[in-house]
This record gives sequence, structure tokens and C-alpha cells, in this order.
Amino acid sequence: MRVLFVGDVVARPGLRAVAMHLPDVRDRYDWVIVNGENAAGGKGLDKKSYRILREAGADLITLGNHAWDKKDVYDLIEREPIVRAANYPPGTPGRGWWVLERGGFRLLVVQVMGRVFMDALDDPFRTVDRVLEEVPHDAAIVEIHAEATSEKYALGFYLDGRVAAVLGTHTHVPTLDAGFLPGGTAFQADVGMTGTYRSIIGGEVKTFLDRFLTARPQPFRSAEGPALFVATELVFDGPRVQAISPYRWEEP
Amino acid sequence: MRVLFVGDVVARPGLRAVAMHLPDVRDRYDWVIVNGENAAGGKGLDKKSYRILREAGADLITLGNHAWDKKDVYDLIEREPIVRAANYPPGTPGRGWWVLERGGFRLLVVQVMGRVFMDALDDPFRTVDRVLEEVPHDAAIVEIHAEATSEKYALGFYLDGRVAAVLGTHTHVPTLDAGFLPGGTAFQADVGMTGTYRSIIGGEVKTFLDRFLTARPQPFRSAEGPALFVATELVFDGPRVQAISPYRWEEP
Amino acid sequence: MRVLFVGDVVARPGLRAVAMHLPDVRDRYDWVIVNGENAAGGKGLDKKSYRILREAGADLITLGNHAWDKKDVYDLIEREPIVRAANYPPGTPGRGWWVLERGGFRLLVVQVMGRVFMDALDDPFRTVDRVLEEVPHDAAIVEIHAEATSEKYALGFYLDGRVAAVLGTHTHVPTLDAGFLPGGTAFQADVGMTGTYRSIIGGEVKTFLDRFLTARPQPFRSAEGPALFVATELVFDGPRVQAISPYRWEEP
Amino acid sequence: MRVLFVGDVVARPGLRAVAMHLPDVRDRYDWVIVNGENAAGGKGLDKKSYRILREAGADLITLGNHAWDKKDVYDLIEREPIVRAANYPPGTPGRGWWVLERGGFRLLVVQVMGRVFMDALDDPFRTVDRVLEEVPHDAAIVEIHAEATSEKYALGFYLDGRVAAVLGTHTHVPTLDAGFLPGGTAFQADVGMTGTYRSIIGGEVKTFLDRFLTARPQPFRSAEGPALFVATELVFDGPRVQAISPYRWEEP
Ligand SMILES: [Fe+2]
Ligand SMILES: [Fe+2]
Ligand SMILES: [Fe+2]
Ligand SMILES: [Fe+2]
Ligand SMILES: [Fe+2]
Ligand SMILES: [Fe+2]
Ligand SMILES: [Fe+2]
Ligand SMILES: [Fe+2]
Repeated sequence: MRVLFVGDVVARPGLRAVAMHLPDVRDRYDWVIVNGENAAGGKGLDKKSYRILREAGADLITLGNHAWDKKDVYDLIEREPIVRAANYPPGTPGRGWWVLERGGFRLLVVQVMGRVFMDALDDPFRTVDRVLEEVPHDAAIVEIHAEATSEKYALGFYLDGRVAAVLGTHTHVPTLDAGFLPGGTAFQADVGMTGTYRSIIGGEVKTFLDRFLTARPQPFRSAEGPALFVATELVFDGPRVQAISPYRWEEP
Repeated sequence: MRVLFVGDVVARPGLRAVAMHLPDVRDRYDWVIVNGENAAGGKGLDKKSYRILREAGADLITLGNHAWDKKDVYDLIEREPIVRAANYPPGTPGRGWWVLERGGFRLLVVQVMGRVFMDALDDPFRTVDRVLEEVPHDAAIVEIHAEATSEKYALGFYLDGRVAAVLGTHTHVPTLDAGFLPGGTAFQADVGMTGTYRSIIGGEVKTFLDRFLTARPQPFRSAEGPALFVATELVFDGPRVQAISPYRWEEP
Repeated sequence: MRVLFVGDVVARPGLRAVAMHLPDVRDRYDWVIVNGENAAGGKGLDKKSYRILREAGADLITLGNHAWDKKDVYDLIEREPIVRAANYPPGTPGRGWWVLERGGFRLLVVQVMGRVFMDALDDPFRTVDRVLEEVPHDAAIVEIHAEATSEKYALGFYLDGRVAAVLGTHTHVPTLDAGFLPGGTAFQADVGMTGTYRSIIGGEVKTFLDRFLTARPQPFRSAEGPALFVATELVFDGPRVQAISPYRWEEP
Repeated sequence: MRVLFVGDVVARPGLRAVAMHLPDVRDRYDWVIVNGENAAGGKGLDKKSYRILREAGADLITLGNHAWDKKDVYDLIEREPIVRAANYPPGTPGRGWWVLERGGFRLLVVQVMGRVFMDALDDPFRTVDRVLEEVPHDAAIVEIHAEATSEKYALGFYLDGRVAAVLGTHTHVPTLDAGFLPGGTAFQADVGMTGTYRSIIGGEVKTFLDRFLTARPQPFRSAEGPALFVATELVFDGPRVQAISPYRWEEP
């Protein structure tokens, strides 16, 4: 089995990169998972951006702290293959995990959010334990949508040997540490953003910079610019990952 | 001119990597700059770790939020080529920048710390402006010791075209974004840690993980394990950087 | 001299309390200072809320972290007796202090914001030092708009004996510690909110509570309910305060 | 039934105030509950400070974020009437609630910690729900050890009409809002500190102020000075509180 995990797709450049590139390579993968929390103009997921991601070949969309920014999501999340963090409190719409099946092989995908420098959610460590125990699966990918590298590595080692891969998202910058933890779990602290890097994590440079320079509220505007498609490729050997590699395509 | 910038050296594995590897390659570089904020057992810089870094070939040691963890630093910082963040308040011991000279070429190195999810220091943006204006130099490297990728990119774009390079440190994970901003400044959000990656950002897995699992204070212990030497190489063409590349050596 | 300092006026109940009560007691005071950062529907200050506060008898309006929530403020702040935090960065519209004069007596009012759990502004301690030195005055009131009690007390002791009073705002709950620091400066950690306490710090109970219960974004709505006018009265004896007392009026 | 709830007792002045004053008034109350998280020199609870509090008349000691600062607590908490926050994760030593009984009347005391600006614990709202449901009681006092006034009020309204009282601790400053929520629950955002107010929330002024002025680590030292005994008195009428009043005694 081969899986392509695409990091936070941000706004028009991100959607353009996915639409231009993913169809060309889609058939090399069994499944394509895409983080879409910033797809709609940088904030949330709406029907249009959801459709673009799916038509390009995404099997499953994951979210994050921007999950609820667009109201469309409340409708989409009830009907479509979408995952929001599993450690939201009881009663949260949607679901925190999804099982992708193919030829009898069940790949569980779970997302949790970190709590360091982020919102107060339920315990991500024990939440993953519970999902792993309750949901039958042959292999599992855990997405940790978090800010702090310490929390991402902590979850990686916590799950090492128990899941196929732990992949981080949220910082919008890919990390150069894709590899294997001692127990065999594939790990990368952040897959990185699909969007334009002529930006401040996807936001327009001028307005985002002004936040820092003025300490006053500034409008959020997503940036325009040449797009990068940034992802991580996982090659499975049965239930374990045998190869993890950063994947990158540049808009010509 | 060629510069090797070594990211946060953490504890014994980090010092070992520097001592084993740096002397072998030292003469390929005009200057070697080393972030030593975690050199002494993971917390701060003491005389012994300082000496190891210098004897291995470091020309300049930079610090960070762990600058003051070991008392030795108060003595070292008055006499030795050491830089703490320039945006500490007036009256802070030591200095926030250093000029390395060779053949009449003056390379200014400035460190500032970010403020997002970190301590309340003076404005890093305006602090860099002031240093650049006051200190004569032919080229400048700015180290942004910060948590948030947004703040690092914001400073990068703020200085784009005005300095040779903006390099991030502090997260202990190298980023896969080394490259050039539109105005020509070399940039990487984080150089990454020199130390063992069989750890949680340099700390022992068990005790560090217990912080997350128990929410109670746990002793900090640095990890033992195979060391990586992680750095970023900058090749200058006059005052500008013409090539930036992640650099990595693994302990055999 | 007698001064009435009215804490964060929140939304319609707050404006109503000021409009109903302040005119009745206005002539007992030489000056009335009102924090208006939440006057316009709980978020910021607009022309209408500004006018209500002024017509009720306020001589000076201070702001806080919600200063910029309504765009009207950019116009008002250039022409009217309004103070935003003095430790915003250089170039910020408006001013961080104001001098009220009467019979040759100059009362300096300065606002600074704390940085613990708040935005990254310039150093509030050194900012107050500079204002006190640069602006001629006979007595000074310093408003510390801050979250952490430690930072408020720290500024109180830092200024103890140098200013007439240090009064806190921002938490929307009055503290029971109005008194004098050892050097004679009057101090209260928080003046408290003028508005309805049948609310969560001025916000509608249901929607505000839902933020905590759902961890998802919720609309902000200000609460309706019986209003309290909550303030602190300062009686001066020359340049020092000789009496500080919490002041409270309940809507009948 | 009458209950005296004593806020965070800090260091020697706090212990002295309790030892000097509590025995004189002890027999006016059915139960005395004391927050002891800062009793041992400002950080944690040790055997000596525990004994002082108990010998002065405390029936139950509660803790907070400083619960684990002194190692003695791990032993004490297994054998003595001590409560740590109930929303620590599963497996945490000790217990998060206690039932005080007298004449067949069972008073449940629960502590939870807030999560805004504090550590990542389990959900305090749902934790209280569970304790209230599982533990038989005739009346309940909920202590919310938290920083943000919004979170304290949110819990107050969440429990309004379901518990006798919600009392806040942690900020070390008493609030002037003791009263009743619409559903009849007695509420005060913070009971305040028992200790010396010639301090920064119990810490020595000079060293604590230096944290703010230098942004470098400073030793924590508790302050010496005249002590205040600061508490909140609750008078019950059956399962409800009929009167809540701040209580204060000054060392002569
Ligand atoms: Fe995110
Ligand atoms: Fe994102
Ligand atoms: Fe570091
Ligand atoms: Fe650091
Ligand atoms: Fe306010
Ligand atoms: Fe505020
Ligand atoms: Fe405390
Ligand atoms: Fe506390």
C-alpha cells in the first residue's frame, strides 16, 4: 500500500497546486489524505474547496484548529469523508477518525490536536489509545495537529511500535526529520503546507507582518504566489511503513 | 566566505557530535557559529561545555531562552565571543550581536528572540533595525530564536534584501525550507538540534513524556543516544548568500 | 481633588449605568476617567458609545486590548481625550497619556498594558518611567490593563512612592484590595466592570459558556441584565492620594 | 452549617496568620477548608505546614497547580484529608474531592483547575458533572483554581442551581464580587491569599519584580511582612448557601 499525505492546503495557491498536480500522480497511491483546514481562503473548509480537493483525488480530508471557520463544514462533516480532531469534547459534530479500506486492508486515520500553546481539548494521548482500542484496523496513521515539537515527538514515542506512522501538521513548514522511531513507527514533526511560500505561513506578507509591527488587529488575507505541493509519502509493508519520504512539486 | 551555523547543541550527545565532527571539517569554513543554549546538560552553557565547543572550532556561541540556566554564563559572557538575544531589556549582561572579521570583511551576527508563546522581551523587529543601523558591517546573519513559524517568516520578510541570512533556532527540529526569500535573503525556519533524536527535543523520552501524561512536574534529564550533527551551511558571494544548505552528519 | 475612575464599561448595560448614574454624582468629582474599551457592544469604542460616556460626564476615556475593535476609534483618538496603552510600538495612532488640568494642578493619566498572557507590547515598566520623566505633572494615575495579578502588583511596587495611584483594569471583576502600598501609592488590582454581572465578564452566558464546552468558535454577544456601576474613588491631598474606595451603584 | 473557606495560604506569614487567628474562631464553624498549595515557603505543601494548618483547625486542605512542588505531598495525599484538582488525568495520586460529614449532612468539596493560561488538564466542566453524579452528597462546594475570570464565571453559571457554592482561588487577590448567581449558587471569583500583601502575590518584592525587569530567571523567595487572614464565610440553610461574606483579619 502507498499513501500520500498532503499537508495543510492553504487558499488558492494550495488548491491550485492540488488541482494541477494530484491528478497526474493519483494512481501511484492507494490513498491520498489531505489536510484541508485552510483550504477556503486560508480559514476553514467550504463546499467549493472540499469539492476541488476531492475531485483532484483526495480520499479523506482532515481538519485542525481552523475546522469550524466556515459554516459549510457543519454540513459536509456529517456526510463526507472528513476527520476533525478526535480530542474535541463529547458532542462535537463529525468524527475524529476514519477507516479507509481496500482489498480487505483497513487503514485507520486518526487526528488529534496538541494542547501546548493551543486550545484546551481532551487529552490527545489517551484519546488515541481509546480510538486504537475501539476501532478495528490493520494499520494506523495518526495525525498530530500541533504547535510544539516536544508534544509531537512525545506522541510519536508514546505510539512508537503501535501505529504505522505519526505525522505532524499545523506549523505550515515541513520538517527535515522524516524517519523512523526506534520501535518502527514512521515519524515527521510536520508535513508542511501546500500553498505559496512567498507568504507568512500562507498569509499575505504585508498584512501578516503588520500584526507583529503594530500589535493591532489586521485583516487576514491569504497570499498569492507560486505554489508548492508539499506532502509526505508512506510506503507500507503490511501493517508497517517501510519508507517515508517528503514529497514536493513546484508549480512551473 | 563560508559559514557553518550549528543549531542548538544539546547535552552530551550534542557536545560529542561537535567534538567528533567539527574539527574534521573546520577548515572548510571561514566561520563556525554554534548555538549553545542547551550545551550544559540540556539547560544553559557552563565553562566546560563552552570550552568543548570552542576547542572543536566554534568562533562564536549564541544562546537563547536557556541562556541564564547555568551561572557560569554570567562570567563567560563578559569575556568571550558569546551572543545572547539582543532584545533583552537594557542592562542585561553580555551583548546581542558580534562582529566576526576576516580579511577586512565584517560579518555581523545578531540574535533576537521571538515573543509568540515565549517570554516578554523587547520588540525583535525594531531591535534588529537598530543593530543593523548602529553596527558597521559588510554582511549580516540574523538568528531568530523562536517558537512560531509565523514570527520567523515575518522577520525573514521584514529583513529580506537587507541581510544575508535569517536562520531560526529553538524548536530543535530542522525545517525543510532552506532557500531564498524574494529579495535574496537566505532563510530557514529552523536549523535544528545537534544532539540525539532518540529523545524528545533532546530530553529523555520517559521523563519528558511523563510531563504530558501526568501534568505534574518531572525532572528534566537529557537523553543519551546516537548523535546527529545538524547545521546549515551558507556560502557567501560578497555580502549576499549564494547557497544555503542543510548539513548533517551522523555518529557512526 | 477627587477623581472617579470607572472600570471597563461593557455594552448596553454598562452605558446605561453610566448614563443613569454618573450625571447625578458628577459634580462631586474634579475628574471622571472611564475605561471604554468594551463600550461598543462589548468590543471597542465607537462614536455613539463615546458620546454617551462623554455626555454623562467623563473627562477622559481609556482603552485597552480591545482599543481597535471598532474602526471609529481611529478617528476619535486623533481629536478627543482618549488614551490607549502607552506601550504600543512607535507609530501607533493616538497617545498613551493625557494631562487633566484644573486650577493649575496637572493630573497625568497613563495607561500601560501587561504582557503576561497578553499581546507582545513594549516594556510597560520602562514605558511608564519614560512618560513620568518626559511629561510635567503634579500627580499621576497609572492604569495597568492586565490579566495577571503578579504583573499588576509588580508595577504597583515598582512605582510605589512615585505616583499617586496604580489602578488595574481588564479582568472585569473588582478586587477587594484597594489600599496603599508601603510608599504611599494607592493601589487596586482591578477596578472591575461597569455592566451586568449576570454575564460572563459582560458576555452572554450561553454563548460564552459554549466556548468552554465546545472548544469551537462561538459568536460573541454581550449580555443584557441589571447593571452595576463599578468604580474606584480617589481623594487627593496635594499630589498624593489620601483615600481610595471602591464605589458601586446598582440599577434600581 | 457554617463553613470558612481560607484562600491560598502563602509561606510563613500565611501560616502565622492561620496559627494565630483560626483557633480563636474555629468553633464558630462546622468546617474549615484551607487552600494550602503555597503553604510550604510559597511552593507546595510539606509535612510541617500541613500540620500547622491542621492543628490550627483546618478540616480539609485543598491544593492547586503548586500541589506537587514538595515531595512530602505524595505521602500526605494518600492518608490525609487533602484534595488536589479532580481534573488531573487518570492515575494521578490522591483524590479530587472529599466528603465532610456532620450530623448526617454530607458536604462534598470538589476542586478543579481552569485551563485558560494554565496547564492542559482534563475538562473541568465535565469533571465536576461526573463527581456530582457519582458522589452522594447533600450540598457541594466547588473550588475553581484558575487564572481567568471568564473561566471562573463560566463554571459558576454552568453549576448555578446545582451546587451550593463556587469559589475561585489562585490569583492571590480577593475579589469584590461575593454574591449569588441567578439560580442561587453562591459565587466569588477569588477568595484571595492568606499571607502578606507587602509582596507580589506572596513573593518577595525585589526578586519577583526583577523577573519582570530582567526577563531572566530569578530565585523565588517568599515575602515577610504583616499578615492578613483572608477567607470567605458561607452560611448554609440546608443544602443552599444563604449568606456569603468575605472575611478578613489583620495581624496586630
Ligand atoms: Fe492549524
Ligand atoms: Fe493549518
Ligand atoms: Fe534550544
Ligand atoms: Fe530555546
Ligand atoms: Fe475590558
Ligand atoms: Fe481588556
Ligand atoms: Fe496559590
Ligand atoms: Fe495556584
